[in-house]
Amino acid sequence: MAFYILNSPKSHAYDLSEAVLNLKSKIRFCEKCYGISEDNVCSICSDARRDVYKLCVVENPADIYTFEKTSAFRGLYHVLGGVLSPLDGIGPEALGLPDLFARIQNPDTDVAVQEVIIATNPTVEGEATAHFIHEHIKSLPNSEAIAVTRIAHGVPIGGELEYVDGGTLAHAFAGRKAW
Amino acid sequence: MAFYILNSPKSHAYDLSEAVLNLKSKIRFCEKCYGISEDNVCSICSDARRDVYKLCVVENPADIYTFEKTSAFRGLYHVLGGVLSPLDGIGPEALGLPDLFARIQNPDTDVAVQEVIIATNPTVEGEATAHFIHEHIKSLPNSEAIAVTRIAHGVPIGGELEYVDGGTLAHAFAGRKAW
Repeated sequence: MAFYILNSPKSHAYDLSEAVLNLKSKIRFCEKCYGISEDNVCSICSDARRDVYKLCVVENPADIYTFEKTSAFRGLYHVLGGVLSPLDGIGPEALGLPDLFARIQNPDTDVAVQEVIIATNPTVEGEATAHFIHEHIKSLPNSEAIAVTRIAHGVPIGGELEYVDGGTLAHAFAGRKAW
Repeated sequence: MAFYILNSPKSHAYDLSEAVLNLKSKIRFCEKCYGISEDNVCSICSDARRDVYKLCVVENPADIYTFEKTSAFRGLYHVLGGVLSPLDGIGPEALGLPDLFARIQNPDTDVAVQEVIIATNPTVEGEATAHFIHEHIKSLPNSEAIAVTRIAHGVPIGGELEYVDGGTLAHAFAGRKAW
């Protein structure tokens, strides 16, 4: 990086320096979804064309952009900022799970979430967090009106089965779908 | 490989040489599933403890061992020996698909297959072959008694969503499962 800046015009260095400062001063967390934003509410949460009945729960703000690139989802997001990890002292409160449950139960608007898609990483901690969220939503008073789903586990598109690990193959078998 | 053999005792070289010859002379394709076998019928097809009502269709004999290692499937297999590729002149006959359909429709035993799990690779050719097989099975006279399923596509277990390609993520979303 140092050599790249040495070789660039002075104005580039100024721009980069300003951008780094702006990153910390102007970027904040969205009040609704906790994704990153330049305003109090991010561009996704304030977009009237999004499907407000679907809520996708992700671990990190970066996951939002990963999903947005696929255009597969047109609903809203909720960022946890991590996963449950009791040994590291990260419990439901540290993750802001009460905020998530409050958002599902008492939405600011007159809109009630109909589907919560849990898209935490397919790791041990991500699965445990997904299970915790599912169990808690099912204990809410209006739980029967809310579908809780999990993104599919299986073989990645374009790969060869020979190079897929056993755990993934077993999940792909168990989760096989009728045509 | 040459240096490894130079450093090993003479007997190892003889054993290896014999094994290579035996591979071509003793190993043949199983008459039922077209997997590899030392006998006319392979150890899986002749195993009375397997679930004969489930048939898993794979591309290559090696895929059988990939699935066997996971212990996720206790049924029988059928090896295609490739995928449909019209440009290379590989049509349904070259893949032995008539054999597969005959096996489903007129089993040698009094057992009728109840589920055909199509486990071709998640590539373009693999998907096209899977669709062809599904369409053909649905046109068989006893098709309503046969469930045709496809192994799940989705995010691999243990990975991070950030590093999963867009096509896989879109499939993981579309194939999300209710709890």
